[in-house]
Amino acid sequence: MCFVNDRLDQRFSKTTPQGDTHPRDVCDHCGYVAYQNPKIVVGSVVLHSGKVLLCRRAIEPRRGYWTVPAGYLEQGETPEEGARREAREEANADLELHGLLALYTVRRLSQVQLIYRATLADGRFSPGVESLETALFDWDTIPWDDLAFPTVHWMLGHQRALDKGDGQAPFGNPVMPD
Amino acid sequence: MCFVNDRLDQRFSKTTPQGDTHPRDVCDHCGYVAYQNPKIVVGSVVLHSGKVLLCRRAIEPRRGYWTVPAGYLEQGETPEEGARREAREEANADLELHGLLALYTVRRLSQVQLIYRATLADGRFSPGVESLETALFDWDTIPWDDLAFPTVHWMLGHQRALDKGDGQAPFGNPVMPD
Repeated sequence: MCFVNDRLDQRFSKTTPQGDTHPRDVCDHCGYVAYQNPKIVVGSVVLHSGKVLLCRRAIEPRRGYWTVPAGYLEQGETPEEGARREAREEANADLELHGLLALYTVRRLSQVQLIYRATLADGRFSPGVESLETALFDWDTIPWDDLAFPTVHWMLGHQRALDKGDGQAPFGNPVMPD
Repeated sequence: MCFVNDRLDQRFSKTTPQGDTHPRDVCDHCGYVAYQNPKIVVGSVVLHSGKVLLCRRAIEPRRGYWTVPAGYLEQGETPEEGARREAREEANADLELHGLLALYTVRRLSQVQLIYRATLADGRFSPGVESLETALFDWDTIPWDDLAFPTVHWMLGHQRALDKGDGQAPFGNPVMPD
């Protein structure tokens, strides 16, 4: 964060600032406190005529693998707005949202995921610039071995459970986070 | 973020980095992209024997006003862990959590609040270093005019609605965020 520090090859030290409860990365050169905060991912499991919308990623990480429309929440945005924006960017799709499907924590990445239940507003979708292709899948044709991330498995499983009346939204991590 | 920039009184420019969808603050000196992300607040409405636990703030902002145990989620923490940690820090209280009461967005602060339903694990509580006092309130003695933040009003109202069987958790902002 401190480029003077970077250039002089100095270091950050783990120090607890006065009045704080946790050690932070404090620049030895200028005292700058490099707070790090968890990030929020927003996304949706999008249904249409009993099928689920998936996008094949055109970008790393996991290029070529299938995922749901999802991404980082932006400043000044509600999670619902963010989930709708991601569907427009990745699948040129307008969504109707129907409440929170799941709240997951990916501890290793300090990521909190807010996943919504959604349907296509008008049935239309097509690949956005971050997607190689977009498609609707029956539950028995979902490419389970080619899903991009573990949480995509989780949310599809939780949507399926909800459809069967098994469990209640919002779901959490299906196992303790690692 | 760039201290060379700071010292030379140079500026950040709003530029959309290649492959990005939003303009960011990019340092004119070194090209550093100063991403800003929404922050996550975790907290709990804590009940015990039909009363609600409130803490009178010992710190700014809103020193002297009443709030629930809540604060920023830390790196590598689940929201549930964060909510329990805040109750220990602010009220020396161990919580049992009972699911998500509400998910609020404070757009002006780019803040997403995850608020849990909770009870005291063993009935014990006392002021932590960030609290002047802690107390249990009957619903008709809650200091409504001396609550610290609008979202504290919202969550107490939503807990009360839930107790009366009115509505379903998780609740959202009671009005459109400003």
